[in-house]
Amino acid sequence: MSNPLLYSHQFLATGGQCNAGGTMSLPVLVQAIIDVATEHANALNIGFERLRTFNAAWVLSRLSIQMDRWPGVNEEWTMTTWIENWNRLYSDRVFEITDAQGNVIGNARTAWVAIDVDSRTPADLTQLHPETMIYAEKKCPVPRMRKLLPVALDTATVVRDYQFLYTDIDVNGHVNSVRYVEHILNLWPPALYAKYPLCGFEIAYIHECFYDQRVAIAAIETQPDDTGTAHATVDILRDGERAVAAAVTFRKKS
Amino acid sequence: MSNPLLYSHQFLATGGQCNAGGTMSLPVLVQAIIDVATEHANALNIGFERLRTFNAAWVLSRLSIQMDRWPGVNEEWTMTTWIENWNRLYSDRVFEITDAQGNVIGNARTAWVAIDVDSRTPADLTQLHPETMIYAEKKCPVPRMRKLLPVALDTATVVRDYQFLYTDIDVNGHVNSVRYVEHILNLWPPALYAKYPLCGFEIAYIHECFYDQRVAIAAIETQPDDTGTAHATVDILRDGERAVAAAVTFRKKS
Repeated sequence: MSNPLLYSHQFLATGGQCNAGGTMSLPVLVQAIIDVATEHANALNIGFERLRTFNAAWVLSRLSIQMDRWPGVNEEWTMTTWIENWNRLYSDRVFEITDAQGNVIGNARTAWVAIDVDSRTPADLTQLHPETMIYAEKKCPVPRMRKLLPVALDTATVVRDYQFLYTDIDVNGHVNSVRYVEHILNLWPPALYAKYPLCGFEIAYIHECFYDQRVAIAAIETQPDDTGTAHATVDILRDGERAVAAAVTFRKKS
Repeated sequence: MSNPLLYSHQFLATGGQCNAGGTMSLPVLVQAIIDVATEHANALNIGFERLRTFNAAWVLSRLSIQMDRWPGVNEEWTMTTWIENWNRLYSDRVFEITDAQGNVIGNARTAWVAIDVDSRTPADLTQLHPETMIYAEKKCPVPRMRKLLPVALDTATVVRDYQFLYTDIDVNGHVNSVRYVEHILNLWPPALYAKYPLCGFEIAYIHECFYDQRVAIAAIETQPDDTGTAHATVDILRDGERAVAAAVTFRKKS
């Protein structure tokens, strides 16, 4: 692939990366999204080293994933990414997931902000001269993330308490983006995922959480509709305030 | 690299894979060890697909890691693996971790068993005709894992209770090897790792754990010696029985 505005990385879904359903797990996909974004940003010289020159760091703000099919054990798959759009505050980066035959099996959309490492406030992205980095020839079918209604603790259908531990914390000193995803998935037992595998996931990172903080992870679930699709809206609440909002889509195993 | 008995995989330590100390985290290294072992086994045709023909699956039995230095954020590193030895029950696979300049920054040693997927008992590895797959030209400096003394709950200096959740469970239907490592690391706060980064880790997987089971994670810690090195011996106890035994070595940050 010769166009530097498109970047691809090939992966193997090892058994160790797969869930009890025999398919690659969502946290592995989210980590790959973050890693491939990082690699492409480095290649474009808008990565960690460049942002460090103005005391900033990339932080994932929003993520939406739609999967038609998950890679199985020992299956090769490829992630391709490009920058779709860019403004002063957000960089919109999208992803296509393909199997070894080149079939598209999923897509993802992310929004990134650069935060000032000291003030924790957003940095101005226009200083990266981004207009030349947009790739307009491919389209991502995942819509921009919708606004998620808050989950009130007293109407939640499932709630779990959690206190952040050492391995939750990343290089930015706050809770790692992938960890929130895992804590949300842990609201449900393996038996649910066996019948209703995940097919969609959206998450908005609103406020940073830190080591030792206690949160409530609360969800409102819907019953499956005629097509066997069920939804859950999830909030991670710290002192009653929404730190993370998410939505999970399950689809009855065919 | 033309010798198929040596296998290398190059990685980038992204920010998302690094801990608050700014270096790649141990769980990322353990996942890489499992993934690179899987890739090399596939290349040698002793991987998942081959073992499936006699209803078996590879399971990590023991792991020892010694790191002189950890890759930092955005640093490229390479893992090289080879089979050191093999008998009816165990496959001994070792690893060398090098930086971009080719300096060895760490080593690891693993022992794998193939278990029968139904009976959960060890399968006979001699049917893989392994004698041709040993690479004897490189040596791994990590000694065979020593026998770890059991940790009694009443003498433990730190104990944490845990109940296994959805994301702990892998394709084999039991708790994932990397998860035990994370639960052990979570015995200590980030402040400890900031002063005393990890330099060594050993783990023996004794009995499988499953979803919803409750365990006690108990450790006996030593005080730092003259060289600033401290040790912890850790057991993961299920109904008082040792499911996992581990040892952690910390070394005062210089």
